[in-house]
Amino acid sequence: MGAGRLEAFSDAVMAVIITLLAFELQPPTGSTWASLTEVKGDFFIYVLAFAFIAIYWNNHHHLLRATTRIDGAVMWANMLLLLCLSLIPVLTRWLKAFPLDAQPVATFGIVALASGLSYLLLVHALIRANGPDSLLARAISSDVKGYASLGLYAAAVVLAFVSVWISYALYAAVAVMWLIPDRRFSRAARED
Amino acid sequence: MGAGRLEAFSDAVMAVIITLLAFELQPPTGSTWASLTEVKGDFFIYVLAFAFIAIYWNNHHHLLRATTRIDGAVMWANMLLLLCLSLIPVLTRWLKAFPLDAQPVATFGIVALASGLSYLLLVHALIRANGPDSLLARAISSDVKGYASLGLYAAAVVLAFVSVWISYALYAAVAVMWLIPDRRFSRAARED
Amino acid sequence: MGAGRLEAFSDAVMAVIITLLAFELQPPTGSTWASLTEVKGDFFIYVLAFAFIAIYWNNHHHLLRATTRIDGAVMWANMLLLLCLSLIPVLTRWLKAFPLDAQPVATFGIVALASGLSYLLLVHALIRANGPDSLLARAISSDVKGYASLGLYAAAVVLAFVSVWISYALYAAVAVMWLIPDRRFSRAARED
Amino acid sequence: MGAGRLEAFSDAVMAVIITLLAFELQPPTGSTWASLTEVKGDFFIYVLAFAFIAIYWNNHHHLLRATTRIDGAVMWANMLLLLCLSLIPVLTRWLKAFPLDAQPVATFGIVALASGLSYLLLVHALIRANGPDSLLARAISSDVKGYASLGLYAAAVVLAFVSVWISYALYAAVAVMWLIPDRRFSRAARED
Repeated sequence: MGAGRLEAFSDAVMAVIITLLAFELQPPTGSTWASLTEVKGDFFIYVLAFAFIAIYWNNHHHLLRATTRIDGAVMWANMLLLLCLSLIPVLTRWLKAFPLDAQPVATFGIVALASGLSYLLLVHALIRANGPDSLLARAISSDVKGYASLGLYAAAVVLAFVSVWISYALYAAVAVMWLIPDRRFSRAARED
Repeated sequence: MGAGRLEAFSDAVMAVIITLLAFELQPPTGSTWASLTEVKGDFFIYVLAFAFIAIYWNNHHHLLRATTRIDGAVMWANMLLLLCLSLIPVLTRWLKAFPLDAQPVATFGIVALASGLSYLLLVHALIRANGPDSLLARAISSDVKGYASLGLYAAAVVLAFVSVWISYALYAAVAVMWLIPDRRFSRAARED
Repeated sequence: MGAGRLEAFSDAVMAVIITLLAFELQPPTGSTWASLTEVKGDFFIYVLAFAFIAIYWNNHHHLLRATTRIDGAVMWANMLLLLCLSLIPVLTRWLKAFPLDAQPVATFGIVALASGLSYLLLVHALIRANGPDSLLARAISSDVKGYASLGLYAAAVVLAFVSVWISYALYAAVAVMWLIPDRRFSRAARED
Repeated sequence: MGAGRLEAFSDAVMAVIITLLAFELQPPTGSTWASLTEVKGDFFIYVLAFAFIAIYWNNHHHLLRATTRIDGAVMWANMLLLLCLSLIPVLTRWLKAFPLDAQPVATFGIVALASGLSYLLLVHALIRANGPDSLLARAISSDVKGYASLGLYAAAVVLAFVSVWISYALYAAVAVMWLIPDRRFSRAARED
């Protein structure tokens, strides 16, 4: 399988991103449960970023499992995706420093959008490399969730300047949308 | 095998947790063996947390190896388990800052309990996905150790308010219980 | 496959290097997009180092996949390569502290050169271990890109003392050269 | 293969240890090559610790590859080995703070000795689990290098109180002894 190398590298980079996210979590400065309120914002941002990366991990594995051929364009698109995802930890740090400022919150959406577009590029490069009749091309024929995510992220970027809470709600909505049991997903898993 | 993707992601997250735990260890400020007494509490907490994650790693691998089908509910339960486990490093940091305060010590037990319940959820989701006659369902038919652990963790949460030493003893007891050679475990390993 | 062990160890070390690079990225101190200009130099250095390691990862996997035998000399050469690559994060830190000073910029080139030479050593050790008629020996028969990279790195070391921008341009040129879709690469991937 | 789970966990822990070691490296405070002399002691300690872990990685993989059965005693011995190895990064930090003091230098030897003894325990547990006629038992029949390492580490612990340089020389000697191409090793690799 030609994608084994690509998958191993991608897995490692995504594992690294999760590492950095978990590392950013700090305990409260006090020793009581009341002091946990200090860290509830950070915890919410952590869960959001954890879900974001976990969803990409799942989709990426799913995509590459159906792949038999890769070429230079696939490699470029994959590198771009990984570079986008690797910015999530530093963005998360920025968000924690300024959780209520529009520009850091909007920047999360911009990077999420760039990640989504890189993923789309990767999908198209893979379809071109594997042919329109390949297992891959049929498996992902219509990617409604993918396009909906891009739309929601774009909305979140703009609406961050109205209220950051709208953006946070949209980011959480995308995560929940991907986590909800999906008939297409289950079927694919059963066919393994 | 449908669980390969899930297993790879889970392994990476657990490896990360061990990383963060080891990273927290600091050398003593002096250069003599006498100065090692400064770090003996941290070392004990490290060993406890290391054993905690190692036991989950083992059980999780064991569980997924017997699995042939996964679905959305399995994914949700697994994500919840990983999220619980990923809180161990920050909890460990909190414990090191306040090793003798009831609330941080009890919180360790609460997260251990949440991890155990997520694991139970995962087991049930896997049995439902694989069917009551599957290899998996027969392999884990009665999980006495699992329920005993939940009971001991619950006791440790409450008893932390009597003395934190009782809780530490219970956490250590659970770890030792899982590490003791287990006829069921050996048999399963021999059958690989 | 005798190289499985070597490959796993090398993968882990390279994943670690990427981790350390991503960890070095810091958010800007302000909350506005204008404040992002503070970090644009660091970001450029990050992308350069990310591409550097990613290229080695790809080439290394490619090389070891065609290998059936390893010996002590292969192990030595591989260890030397990993040791060189593991210096990239600390070098990157040094570069960020003094991005316009000739000696740190030249040192990046020296370590890049040492990495390239270790890789060449590894290639020759692998050919000797696998025989001149092996799949490996035929696959890498003429490594024009490899030698061109060594030449460009050597030039970058010297020219850093004229202007560090020439060196940065040369480092970027090597990265782009390796990322450009390569007929040889695509063909090899298709043959998997 | 019953040891797959054990190997994956062990690999991850060892990769983590290498991560922590590389992370400890700091660039010099100045921008000139002359300032590199500040970090030459740290670099030497890094190379020593890198080689130490790399050697265990190799031997461990070699050992587990020949294994078909594991039991509770194997798990205990392996956990003990990993726990010993996971102390190397914090020990290295201690060494860097007090590179010329006898007790930290001797402590490195004590942990190296404990690692070696855990490894021996693991070997014996594996032989017992796999039987005296197994491939494993024949492959490791006489482990001269292993016993020589234990002797040299023990000597280094004692002689640190005469001069730390003797101990450093002995630690380096053990590393070199393991890295030298070894007929037995090459033969095993060729037979893969």
